[in-house]
Amino acid sequence: MNKPIGIFDSGVGGLTVAKAIRDVLPNEDVIYFGDTAHLPYGEKSPEAIRNYSMGIADFLVKSGAKAIVIACNSASSVATELLRENFEPQVPVINVIDPVIRAINPSIHDIGIIGTRATIGSGVYQDKIASIHPNVAIHALATPLLVPVIEEGLEKSEIATKTAEHYLGLPEMQKIDALIPGCTHYPLLTDLFNQILGEETVLMDTPNIVAQHVKEVLTSSNMLNGGVQEGSASFFVSDFTPTFERIARHFFRKEIQLSELDIWK
Amino acid sequence: MNKPIGIFDSGVGGLTVAKAIRDVLPNEDVIYFGDTAHLPYGEKSPEAIRNYSMGIADFLVKSGAKAIVIACNSASSVATELLRENFEPQVPVINVIDPVIRAINPSIHDIGIIGTRATIGSGVYQDKIASIHPNVAIHALATPLLVPVIEEGLEKSEIATKTAEHYLGLPEMQKIDALIPGCTHYPLLTDLFNQILGEETVLMDTPNIVAQHVKEVLTSSNMLNGGVQEGSASFFVSDFTPTFERIARHFFRKEIQLSELDIWK
Repeated sequence: MNKPIGIFDSGVGGLTVAKAIRDVLPNEDVIYFGDTAHLPYGEKSPEAIRNYSMGIADFLVKSGAKAIVIACNSASSVATELLRENFEPQVPVINVIDPVIRAINPSIHDIGIIGTRATIGSGVYQDKIASIHPNVAIHALATPLLVPVIEEGLEKSEIATKTAEHYLGLPEMQKIDALIPGCTHYPLLTDLFNQILGEETVLMDTPNIVAQHVKEVLTSSNMLNGGVQEGSASFFVSDFTPTFERIARHFFRKEIQLSELDIWK
Repeated sequence: MNKPIGIFDSGVGGLTVAKAIRDVLPNEDVIYFGDTAHLPYGEKSPEAIRNYSMGIADFLVKSGAKAIVIACNSASSVATELLRENFEPQVPVINVIDPVIRAINPSIHDIGIIGTRATIGSGVYQDKIASIHPNVAIHALATPLLVPVIEEGLEKSEIATKTAEHYLGLPEMQKIDALIPGCTHYPLLTDLFNQILGEETVLMDTPNIVAQHVKEVLTSSNMLNGGVQEGSASFFVSDFTPTFERIARHFFRKEIQLSELDIWK
């Protein structure tokens, strides 16, 4: 089906998911909406997040999206059901939490989960892991410095190294044999995390897990793009930010189309 | 006058001002309100900040405050006039921006100003410096990593050192002969800043400047506490946070009284 995959987040984080989808499904078109005017979602009420998410999903579907990927932990946590009620089965809705929880290897004993204060405080990962993998011990840690480090463009700096070493060196992280980077920004620190965790601890590749799930859903719904040429990517933000442009350019290499658009006007 | 000085901020930052007031006026009582339920103010609309500030000032005055210190850059910027209209001349209102601008030494050629993205983006320091000191060149830089580093309790860590070195090493900071730490959190990094800036560059001691101004205002209004015993300090927050308790304990040493209070109920 020659229609784009719609992806949204409150900002740049979802670009890691968009990039993974592009890697797994290179000839799909993607249309991305970053709600930079309202970020961070983590500090908004569930009602506000649902309201923003519905507005964006509506925009994506009206723009032709055949599927919606909620590439934001806060919106995944509170808006998935609402979007499913409104858009499925015509337009499948995929979030960034459930496929990752399902992908936890049954051999794991102690799983670490890191995320923003809002995500860890909400307990969404902890609750979902406990209900599907009741024998896994969960070690959750809020790591609020990581997002601002990435948004400052410092992910390759010594500041990033010291910060990641600090968090992963805390007692609660010492027993884990797998780590979920529970924030869509964190894949920008994958190399650093792997270096600190060493070979004994599995770093879950969350964007790839989500992208593989998108592929499965499109395949089973007969919605894959049958074309062979490279898909297009367009990016919309509700408020232009240099960080968004920098990371989108970094991930998608060539010139990207970035448009500011107030869908609430 | 045997009544407390009321001080407020959106969170812990104003504690640096409260501490300086305690150092300069050791036998004054202080009553502090941290609006932790609504922080950070930098991301709220001016209307919302004015609304919160009025509610808090009202609470402080009803609790007996003889003066109000707005120990928050965002509220200083948008709510000073409103509070003056409502509470002066009975209760003088002092903010954390104007005394600092007035204290800039006329021999300064190039002044640096660092702050949150909201403070620097608002241009409040730049505009006020330009109107009072038209010949001073202004070098403004948003330093958004510093507040989360402090709120994580990492102000003595190598992360803080690397982060401060990064910001103060940027080109816009190379020519300055004085630096305004334009965020009430930053005095927790005073030693580090002085170490990096060296002796050539003056780090303005903003909490002390504000505290000296409070002393002048109380003196000229005949409102100083004539007692000789050490003043009391009470702390209210709209939402309990361990960071607030940690920094308040650190600054005020002995056991502090910390109460959670929803003044909007």
